[in-house]
Order: sequence, then C-alpha cells, then structure tokens
Amino acid sequence: MSTETPDRSAFAGAAPLQGLRVIEFSAFVAAPSCGLALAQLGADVIRIDPIGGNIDAKRLPLNAHGNSLYWASLNHGKRSIEINPRDPRGRTLMQDLITAPGPAGGIFLTNLGVDGDLGYEALSARRPDLIMVQLSGSPDGANAVDYTVNCAAGFPLVTGNGQQPVNHVLPAWDMLAGMTLATAILAAERHRRLTGEGQLVKLTLADVAFATAANLGYVADVEVNGNSRSADGNFLYGAYGDAFVTSDGRHVMVVAISDRQWKALVRAIGIESQLTAAAVALGHTLDTEDGRWQARELISAVFRPWFAARTLEDVTKAFNDRSLLWGPYRDFQQMLTEDHRVSEANPMFKRIDHPGYGRFLTTGSPLSFSRSTRTPVSPASIIGADTVQVMHDVLQVDETRTASLQADGVLGGKQPST
Amino acid sequence: MSTETPDRSAFAGAAPLQGLRVIEFSAFVAAPSCGLALAQLGADVIRIDPIGGNIDAKRLPLNAHGNSLYWASLNHGKRSIEINPRDPRGRTLMQDLITAPGPAGGIFLTNLGVDGDLGYEALSARRPDLIMVQLSGSPDGANAVDYTVNCAAGFPLVTGNGQQPVNHVLPAWDMLAGMTLATAILAAERHRRLTGEGQLVKLTLADVAFATAANLGYVADVEVNGNSRSADGNFLYGAYGDAFVTSDGRHVMVVAISDRQWKALVRAIGIESQLTAAAVALGHTLDTEDGRWQARELISAVFRPWFAARTLEDVTKAFNDRSLLWGPYRDFQQMLTEDHRVSEANPMFKRIDHPGYGRFLTTGSPLSFSRSTRTPVSPASIIGADTVQVMHDVLQVDETRTASLQADGVLGGKQPST
Repeated sequence: MSTETPDRSAFAGAAPLQGLRVIEFSAFVAAPSCGLALAQLGADVIRIDPIGGNIDAKRLPLNAHGNSLYWASLNHGKRSIEINPRDPRGRTLMQDLITAPGPAGGIFLTNLGVDGDLGYEALSARRPDLIMVQLSGSPDGANAVDYTVNCAAGFPLVTGNGQQPVNHVLPAWDMLAGMTLATAILAAERHRRLTGEGQLVKLTLADVAFATAANLGYVADVEVNGNSRSADGNFLYGAYGDAFVTSDGRHVMVVAISDRQWKALVRAIGIESQLTAAAVALGHTLDTEDGRWQARELISAVFRPWFAARTLEDVTKAFNDRSLLWGPYRDFQQMLTEDHRVSEANPMFKRIDHPGYGRFLTTGSPLSFSRSTRTPVSPASIIGADTVQVMHDVLQVDETRTASLQADGVLGGKQPST
Repeated sequence: MSTETPDRSAFAGAAPLQGLRVIEFSAFVAAPSCGLALAQLGADVIRIDPIGGNIDAKRLPLNAHGNSLYWASLNHGKRSIEINPRDPRGRTLMQDLITAPGPAGGIFLTNLGVDGDLGYEALSARRPDLIMVQLSGSPDGANAVDYTVNCAAGFPLVTGNGQQPVNHVLPAWDMLAGMTLATAILAAERHRRLTGEGQLVKLTLADVAFATAANLGYVADVEVNGNSRSADGNFLYGAYGDAFVTSDGRHVMVVAISDRQWKALVRAIGIESQLTAAAVALGHTLDTEDGRWQARELISAVFRPWFAARTLEDVTKAFNDRSLLWGPYRDFQQMLTEDHRVSEANPMFKRIDHPGYGRFLTTGSPLSFSRSTRTPVSPASIIGADTVQVMHDVLQVDETRTASLQADGVLGGKQPST
C-alpha cells in the first residue's frame, strides 16, 4: 500500500467529497443525477450548457414563467456556466475548464457524444491525469434512451397483467446509470490518488439494464431452467404480497416475506383458521414463502373482502403491529400531504427558494455520514448564472474579459448571478 | 491537499478497486447488489451468512437441485463464509472479520438490523478507522422493502392506464440503493485515506425513493404548480413516444425527442403531409417537443394502423435510419435469443459454470476502465464454500482450528471449497 501523509486538518469534519471538482457536460437524467449526487456530498460540480441551455433546458414540468422544474430539481447545488460550443474560443474554454490545473480538478462527466477536441485523447493530452467518465446509449454504438433500453430488457412485458407491455414511469435505468457513474468517478479518483494515472471510463445505458436483468436471476432462469418469467399483476414474486382496494377507493400494498410478517398479517386480518382450512382443502401449505407464493391467488381472494369493507383509516388502525410490512399507495400530491417522511421533519429535505423556479422541498444526499454534517441544500442556478464566477474561480479570467466573451456570444450568463 | 507518495507499481494496471476488502452481512437485493458491483471492480468482497444461508438463500428462481439462481446471480464473484451468529464465538469471529487489521480491510456493508456487538459503536471501538455502511428501511425506523417503499413514492399510481396502481417488477429502489451504497463506501474510503478517520454511513430505502421523486421534479410540480402528474399509458412524458403492436403480435417502442429524431420517424412512416394537415386542422403544432406531447393521442392514432399492418420484420426494415430511436419489446427469453448485446459478443458478459447452480451468461461490471482490463467474471460460491479459505486468509486461522469450529456448529462450509 502507499504511504500517505494526509493533511488531516483540511478534511476533518468536511463534506465527504470536499476537494473534488467535476465538470459536467450533460443533458437529460443520467449524468445530471450523477452530478447532483456528487454535489450533495460536497463536490464542486460545474455544469456546462450551450447558450440558452441544452436539449433538456425546457423539459416538463415548467413553472408559470416557463422555467423547468425538472431541470432545477436535477441540477440544484451545481454551478452553471453557458458556453457556445460552436465557437472555437468556446471549445477552448471548455477544454480549459475540463483540464484546469490543480489536484481538485480534472474530472469530466458527460453523457453527450463528444469527440474531437472534447474527446478523451485530446483532453488527456492536455492533462494526462484527467478522469473522463462517459455514458452512451448502447454497446453497439446505437443511440438509446431509457424507454428504448427498457423495452429490450424484459421488464415491461412482465409488468402489470401481461396483456401488453407496461413502461415504467420512473426512469430507472437513467437513475441507476447515474449512481453507477458516481461510483465510477470515485473508483477512478481512488486509482488516480494511488498511481497518479487518469483514465477514460465508459458505460452504456443498455448495459446497465442488461446487467440488472442478469444480476436478478432472470438470465439464469432462462438459461438453466428454460423459464422466462411471466407477468403476475401486483403480486410480489416468490413470497406473498399484493395490492388491495379499500372501501374509500384507496389502494394498499401488503407484504409478508418472513414467517413472522406472515403471522402478523393473518393475525391482523383475523382469518387465520379459515384461511388455513381453505389452504388444506386446496392442497396448499402456507408455512413457507414458496408455499404462500403458490397459494397467492387463494390468499388474495380471502383477504380482498376484508379490505373492501374497510376504509384506509380502518386498515391503518388494524395494522398497527410494527412487524407488518404494508403501506398505502400515494400519488405525488398525497406523498407530500400525508407522509411525514416527505417534509422538513426528514433531515434529507429542506424547503428552499430557487430564484426563477419557485420554493419547494429540495433534497440533500440521502446518505448521512457520521463524520460530517449534511451538506446544506442549495438552490438551482438559472442556466448560465454562474458564468462570471466560474470563469474567475477556475480559470482566473477577470470580469472584463468575461464580459467581452459574453458580448461576442462565446459565453452566456449575462443575467446577474443569483 | 495531502502529500502522497503512492507505490505506483502495486496499482498500475490493476482492477480499479484492487486492495479494498468489504465484509458484507446482507440479504435480498440492495446490499448484495452493492457488494457485487464492488467485487466486479476488483474488491475482495466476503459475504457472511448464517449456517444454511440467510433469509434470501432460497429465493426463486431455483434450479432443479433447489439452489437459488437469484442468489447466485447477485452474489457471484464474492467469497462466502458461514458463521453461526447465535453462538458467542460466531459473533466474535464476525467482529474479527469486520475489524481485521490491515489497510485493505475495515469496511462493513450491511442491510440487516445489526446492533450490540455488531453495531458501529462496538466495532469502531475495536477498529477506529472502520467504515460501516448500513441500509435500513425507513427514516422513521419502520421496516420497509422495495414494494412498501414504492407504493409510498408516487410512481405506481401513474404507471399504466391509471385505473389501479401498477407495481414495478424491477426492484428499482433496491438497485438504486445498492449503487448509492457503493458510492458511499468509496466516498468514505476517500475520506479515510485523507484523514485516517472511519465513520458510519446510513441510508434508508425510503429516502432513496423520495429523493428520486423530488429530483425528477415531481415534488416541485406539486409545490410550485399544484399539479400531481397523472397516468398516461405508455406515452413518454414531455415529448413524443409510444408503444405499438405489430401484425405478428409483437410490440415496439418508438421515441422522438429531438427534431431530427421526429423528422426521421415521420419520414420512415411516410405520413408527413397527412399528419401535418391533421395537426393543423386540430390546432396542434408538431414543431416542438411540447407540441408533439400535446398532440400525442393524434400522432399515435395516425401511426397505429401503419404498425398494425406490418410485422416486426417489416418495421425493422423500414426503421433502418440510425437517427431513429425505437426498439422491440422483448421478454427475458427473447432478450437472450434475439439481442446480440446480451451474449458473449458483449465484453460485459461471459457464459461460465457456477458449480451447483449451472452454466449461464454472467455479468462483469458494466463499467469499462481504460487503465485496466475487465475483471474476470467469476462464479458464485455455494453458500459457505469459502469458509476455510477466508478463515485462513483474513484471520490466519489454520484448518485444524476451523474444522473444530465447524464441528462445534460455529462455522459452516464443511463441503469443499469450489
């Protein structure tokens, strides 16, 4: 192992990623969610956008002023600089930012098809210890987005009742790719710390999806057993779990995996003896996870009238045993009004003003580190708002020169930094 | 910054996480998927299970011998040791493994409710630089699993056609939590490298879901606009995308986000003039993402007969323009038989024998690092199979002593290591 003589004072009590600077050139979800996660852990994340913003600048939902709440939600806590990538001076400034000297810098995160003077070869010639992490669509070089990866990876055809594919609404592959990119950056930064070497790390969205399908056993099930999982409604796979509707039109999810959870469930519903008798009559055993999974239709048929006869409030009262695993379905509005975990009572959240966007409950990192207090939740910048400051802080370019580049259309951000 | 004099030779060309040892005490999906990701990047990951395996040891799908393909798929590339946690000597051995000396070790990953002698206080008293990363269910201390987190986080009620909640089949929160744990471990290891300090890092599954809902703009949409997103079938949100059925009963997903993608799509389908005329008649504009989203029902109505009159093969021939974003839906079987990206042609995959489980296409890391070759894909251990070896390598306990602990029921793994 290496011999290290760290300067403890600079990092003791600091945010976990203090001292890391990441230049992000991105659009949509995956790379921005990576940059957000790193910023929330204390990294200095600078997002570069073309003047006027990238292709995701006006993604829905917008607020009444036409500013994107989606953009603000995924990019808060970062600094934003607008540079014209079609101007040669703009390209050079992008290179300068990505390869800026100093041990903090030299990390470039992108999910755009950059090459030439923004490709790894050109950039690493300027800064050999550069870490570049690049996400693309598909390992065969084709474009792909979450929706076109999702349809290929098996899940939509087994979601819902199986009569037709059901797309997920959560962009799960984008989010998972984002955290995979964060892991990649920290792994490469560790390698750089130990060896001085930078490198190019590549990932495709499709590989994230295919790896997940394999890692969850679906590939092995086909290859070893010749079995392709089929759709099964809202049942939990391999144990007992299902969704029910209440008399007041609410829905609840009920899960029992362990024997203890199962016993708590039948006790709460109060039908243990009838259910057992019915199971015996039909040749089912309810004593094992697998047995309950085999008997899932029977169990749900027996449970359903109980829920249909009760309001959500009744169910909540009856389900006060802490060993029960269950919960009501909530839409996004109900999530905010009914769930105390989605409020400032949860230290992950803080309701702050985002000038230009509005005031809303905003996330810090979901991770809590015992050696540091949570990094303060900070607002989203209007796109380009940090241009002057970033030019000054990172490239030591003064305001006069920046103003001249703004006048020439090489840099944006003419509105004052907020 | 710290002054470092790394021993370059030990790490040059090595796997990115060579020199990291992680002790995993886990069950189900989230923490095991974290351990898998780290093992695939070269970390030495040792999973501890109670004798006979943890609660997830027999999760479906099983193979013909009753061994879990799910378990093998999520835990390959790790070493497996069986220890009886109810025996005081077993608990002490678990402490010994977690706090084993040496700069490689001292990282403990768990998603189980450990405390007392396996809690952070007791363990860090033995090894002050210990990093412990612990996932639990909910920030209010309640138990929660992917299904009961999912119902709370808004997405199932906007998945599908909205008449009832639709659970995702992909355990998205577990997988996302797993990669968040991996990021946490590397962030904490960076902090330890810089300061010598260990720490406890905590995460809850529910916070992962709530943070995601917020980061994607759904919370801001409620708080700023008073709007809670509703279900919208298989439409892509905010631009144009939808699913169609072909004459041979296959389904395809078609997406157009940029203007270029949109033009390529209407060109391929060959209905540009009719569609434009219909849009004008109905007051729609198709020139913007937002306009196409507003007109999505019209667009799909016009497109639908075109797909219904063609086989998947016809569509594939017509859609040979590389700027088109589309793909067929595939089940897990079709994914393996039709998609060359899910085969050994993809360097992420290798088809290997997993003794006791079978032969199947197995993942390496989806990340490719230019400074190292991909870490070889390695098989899953039968649970406990590495007991003797781990006792020897990590704790310098010889085979005689291990055999005696096995005879006493403190250790498992009596079958030979594979």
